Amino acid sequence: MKEKCVIGIDIGGTHMRSALVDRKGTVLAFRKAHSESRQGPDSLAHRLAQQCLALLADAGLPSHFLCAVGLGVAGKLDPASGSVIFSPNLPSLAGFPLAVKLQDALQVPVVLENDANVFGLGEAWLGNARNLPHWIGVTLGTGVGGCFFAHGRLWEGDRLGFSGEIGHVIVDPEGPECACGQKGCLEAHASATALVKGIDLARKEGRALSPLLNEALHAGKLTARIVHQAAVQGDPTARGLFSRMGWALALALSNLFTFLGISTAVIGGGVAASWDQFAPPMENYIRRVPSMLDPHRTRIHRSELGDMAAVFGAASLAWQRAEGR
Amino acid sequence: MKEKCVIGIDIGGTHMRSALVDRKGTVLAFRKAHSESRQGPDSLAHRLAQQCLALLADAGLPSHFLCAVGLGVAGKLDPASGSVIFSPNLPSLAGFPLAVKLQDALQVPVVLENDANVFGLGEAWLGNARNLPHWIGVTLGTGVGGCFFAHGRLWEGDRLGFSGEIGHVIVDPEGPECACGQKGCLEAHASATALVKGIDLARKEGRALSPLLNEALHAGKLTARIVHQAAVQGDPTARGLFSRMGWALALALSNLFTFLGISTAVIGGGVAASWDQFAPPMENYIRRVPSMLDPHRTRIHRSELGDMAAVFGAASLAWQRAEGR
Repeated sequence: MKEKCVIGIDIGGTHMRSALVDRKGTVLAFRKAHSESRQGPDSLAHRLAQQCLALLADAGLPSHFLCAVGLGVAGKLDPASGSVIFSPNLPSLAGFPLAVKLQDALQVPVVLENDANVFGLGEAWLGNARNLPHWIGVTLGTGVGGCFFAHGRLWEGDRLGFSGEIGHVIVDPEGPECACGQKGCLEAHASATALVKGIDLARKEGRALSPLLNEALHAGKLTARIVHQAAVQGDPTARGLFSRMGWALALALSNLFTFLGISTAVIGGGVAASWDQFAPPMENYIRRVPSMLDPHRTRIHRSELGDMAAVFGAASLAWQRAEGR
Repeated sequence: MKEKCVIGIDIGGTHMRSALVDRKGTVLAFRKAHSESRQGPDSLAHRLAQQCLALLADAGLPSHFLCAVGLGVAGKLDPASGSVIFSPNLPSLAGFPLAVKLQDALQVPVVLENDANVFGLGEAWLGNARNLPHWIGVTLGTGVGGCFFAHGRLWEGDRLGFSGEIGHVIVDPEGPECACGQKGCLEAHASATALVKGIDLARKEGRALSPLLNEALHAGKLTARIVHQAAVQGDPTARGLFSRMGWALALALSNLFTFLGISTAVIGGGVAASWDQFAPPMENYIRRVPSMLDPHRTRIHRSELGDMAAVFGAASLAWQRAEGR
């Protein structure tokens, strides 16, 4: 007998990934397409609806098997109205009622949530945060996102339009400037942007860089992945940046652990691929510094769901809506 | 008709304050006595039991009207076993099953909780945190304590033996050393100890201090209250210390507001009496800096319950136990 299902969608600046998922988290169909956000928000909504219908067709399911759709989008959102307030990766979506448009097209409930929060929902459902009551999620990408789970549920605070924003927690009041206007945010130490900026600054200061970094800088094609490659090859500037990243992550997490009386975090996002470089200094600091915590009780897990964490999380959100939770 | 009642007790290093309180928070009797902790823990437990019986006699109530007793004690506690693990103000209590001893003497349930947590319970019941769902409590005293309320209930985290420890959140990794072994904790900027140490350091650095401060220093009797008096009189070093205190409080709170997506705090404790000196720089920073928060939505209240916040909180804890909540 065929079962009901939902669709989870992760809309990034470059790609939109979507999956048709059953109640157990089995992927019945998966699609990945370019976001092509320059074509405007109406086109995006139309293509999202088409992608949903294609997923149902891929799985051989009629449309009445679809219960709900969950959407993960980076940025500040208004989940109540289903609108994007501002999305750094998809600026054309500002003010656009994306969830409402998709709901009209598909005639099922559509729920919108911040990308770091859907990452957390995915980890809580099918990843390393299964059965954890209280934990902090961190996504390392162009920026640094985060989420907080309390009693197994996504924490929403006072519903001010943000929560879990660990990227804008200040770890060093004298630290580097952040895109948000503050100084010394975690994001200014631990994002892809911070790594690339750090190399650029070292070049301006006249420090010797490895040929790999110099070539990428001159071609204007320096990425966090190349900084990682340089660190693996032993470039001291690149290594120093990952060391600073590990320290900043540990400080932000240990402050939150101390205040919340908890000891577990899950780290994901594209830059988590550099785990070998930033995790050793992070773990060294967190085992050494926080005075309240038993060093053997802290657990910082790496996400194992990769790109799928947010897709599963969006699907989990859709199941919550479908089941009226 | 006479109603059932509970007793709330706040045991500090110098005094123990206790009140017989009804379900509405009316104080039926109040007593304050010296802790005399040097006489040992058994003597303290005995005197506490006597104080409870005296409160009942003061109110003209027979002992079967007493439902439960709540105890607030500074330090690391094991509420499950009713034992004090370590109390900085009452070192002789280390390892002592205080709640059990009092329970045996009075034959009613006795509950033990950290002093900053009972401060929060008092504010939530009868103070400035009434009806607030999510908020942070801060107690400014010899050290800096804290608590977190989520969905109107005291947050306990993973029950690691501590929670809400805002005093040991690091606000400046290059900041002054803290008694806990870390550098740059909030407590190293915002406690009575930090104010006194700050003046002492300024003297060692040869800075000119007002006669009031010099006299107190030479007599070995410098207190946070005298530093406050000096700041009111215009001493620039004292003013600078309160300014640093306000900045550190604002930074710790704004980081937690940013992560938790909340905007409310209540500040109490003895050093909150210096509100006129540290609150203006604190409010200036918090309205200016946190990038995620609408500056008009942050609310930092001063406790209005004074010394009674912890007594009421201990009574509230006793009511929770009596009512099986």
